[in-house]
Amino acid sequence: MPERLGPPLEQPLFNRLVIVGLGLIGSSLARAARHLHLARTVVAADASPAVRARVAELGIVDEVAPSVAEAVRGADYVILCVPVGACGAVAAEMSGALVPGAIVSDVGSVKGSVVAQVQPHLTSGVHFVPAHPVAGTEHSGPDAGFATLFHGRWCILTPPEGTDPDPVAQVRAFWEALGSNVEIMTPQHHDLVLAITSHVPHLIAYNIVGTAADLEEVTQSEVIKFSAGGFRDFTRIAASDPTMWRDVFLNNKDAVLEMLGRFNEDLSALQRAIRWNDGEALFNLFSRTRTIRRGIIDVGQETPEPDFGRRKAD
Amino acid sequence: MPERLGPPLEQPLFNRLVIVGLGLIGSSLARAARHLHLARTVVAADASPAVRARVAELGIVDEVAPSVAEAVRGADYVILCVPVGACGAVAAEMSGALVPGAIVSDVGSVKGSVVAQVQPHLTSGVHFVPAHPVAGTEHSGPDAGFATLFHGRWCILTPPEGTDPDPVAQVRAFWEALGSNVEIMTPQHHDLVLAITSHVPHLIAYNIVGTAADLEEVTQSEVIKFSAGGFRDFTRIAASDPTMWRDVFLNNKDAVLEMLGRFNEDLSALQRAIRWNDGEALFNLFSRTRTIRRGIIDVGQETPEPDFGRRKAD
Repeated sequence: MPERLGPPLEQPLFNRLVIVGLGLIGSSLARAARHLHLARTVVAADASPAVRARVAELGIVDEVAPSVAEAVRGADYVILCVPVGACGAVAAEMSGALVPGAIVSDVGSVKGSVVAQVQPHLTSGVHFVPAHPVAGTEHSGPDAGFATLFHGRWCILTPPEGTDPDPVAQVRAFWEALGSNVEIMTPQHHDLVLAITSHVPHLIAYNIVGTAADLEEVTQSEVIKFSAGGFRDFTRIAASDPTMWRDVFLNNKDAVLEMLGRFNEDLSALQRAIRWNDGEALFNLFSRTRTIRRGIIDVGQETPEPDFGRRKAD
Repeated sequence: MPERLGPPLEQPLFNRLVIVGLGLIGSSLARAARHLHLARTVVAADASPAVRARVAELGIVDEVAPSVAEAVRGADYVILCVPVGACGAVAAEMSGALVPGAIVSDVGSVKGSVVAQVQPHLTSGVHFVPAHPVAGTEHSGPDAGFATLFHGRWCILTPPEGTDPDPVAQVRAFWEALGSNVEIMTPQHHDLVLAITSHVPHLIAYNIVGTAADLEEVTQSEVIKFSAGGFRDFTRIAASDPTMWRDVFLNNKDAVLEMLGRFNEDLSALQRAIRWNDGEALFNLFSRTRTIRRGIIDVGQETPEPDFGRRKAD
């Protein structure tokens, strides 16, 4: 449904856009940028020869570069779409080839660590505008991307103190052209917000799926058959890319441990309420949580259809 | 899409089917039973005058009875669709009016406690075949039901030792006519299986939504805006009926606390892996969990579409 993106721009925002890492996010950006004509040339760089070959086959970019250094030569906009643990190495690789005036950005789910990794490698005159589109699916790789992924979603920019306003405005215009809403905050606040809205939810989803897989009294076949009682919801985000998520937890350790601590405190209280038959405490919590979902539906970040509008299994 | 249910039976399975409690499950049963002609007469009983009025208005049953006792007079099949904490009181109310040969069943998410509550009230000759359809949505009430809710889902029967095989076969035939797969197990094993596939998942979903709502450093508006990073998935089951779920936890305390203990142990190990930068442990778990989702999709209990096939927000 790329038609939902609107017509291509008459005047592209950038000349040479380089996307480093053609996974779900990078390949979605490539598809959208080309469809909307956001850059004269869209260039792909990826460490994996298999991914480079697949991207060429899919025809979703104008050029597949043999290396990051060659890709970024003459680029005015480079977006790192690699796992957050790899950002420093990629920045080091391309640093000598970047020209003054170029904008470097990323899509990482952690911002403090990315700023710390990337900034030391950037020479004077190169602008760094970190970005995080809060969008995705549980699928990975260049085939999983689609042009409307960012439509109606939020993209958070976390420019370090002292960043020129012009490149920030250009990156904002780019994401708005993709259909996203843009918000600006500090890397530190971003990392705290995402710890609770994304990182800890992923951690507990991975955890319960692991717990269920390891039981002896309940077979794996029973867990699978009777998963429609709630468990299957958790398996979606627990099917997300393992490398990406390993890096998220290692690179947002403090905020994740802080939010996990609160989650655990609250869970202990709930456990105690069950043990002591405190039905009122349970009922009060279970009533409060309904209003949060209503809020998410009201701002258009969730479907109002029951069961996510899932197609029934046949 | 009631057409997916197939044509009505020529010969109904029951004469007078009474559904006690017309919420999501009860009203779905009423719609499906009438559409499929599973009983000559479908009767509704509900403690709430507002629900009785709404059910009459919706026209989804043949008869709305003024009380449970009047409803079950002459019934050959009674299904309790009330919160599990209310089953004992309903059984007491109807006990004198049930005729020998009648089958009593239920749809409760807990089975051990329901057996303990209901059985003492049933007179000799009345058969009790507890049932649990593993199906639902986050919506509640008589308007939320739909006839295909049980299609392709599992229904677990937990007949107490010594139950006649005939009524068990009849209840099985009823659920199979609704499109469900039927499995038989003990109440104790059911309660353990569901603790991990349904009860603990609901508990941790309620818990994280509560934790997120109570933060001071992150505003509720931020939690809502940036929920597409994973959090919003949890809000679906945390929007489920508070009374139903309070009763589930109070009535399956032992199995829930046992499974919650394992969840907590595993979460502590994961927390430690993050603190000590053990990327390998994280990566290994995150890779294992992917295969469980694949299994759920393969047996038709989940959609293969990315993001549950959610319609994109506009």
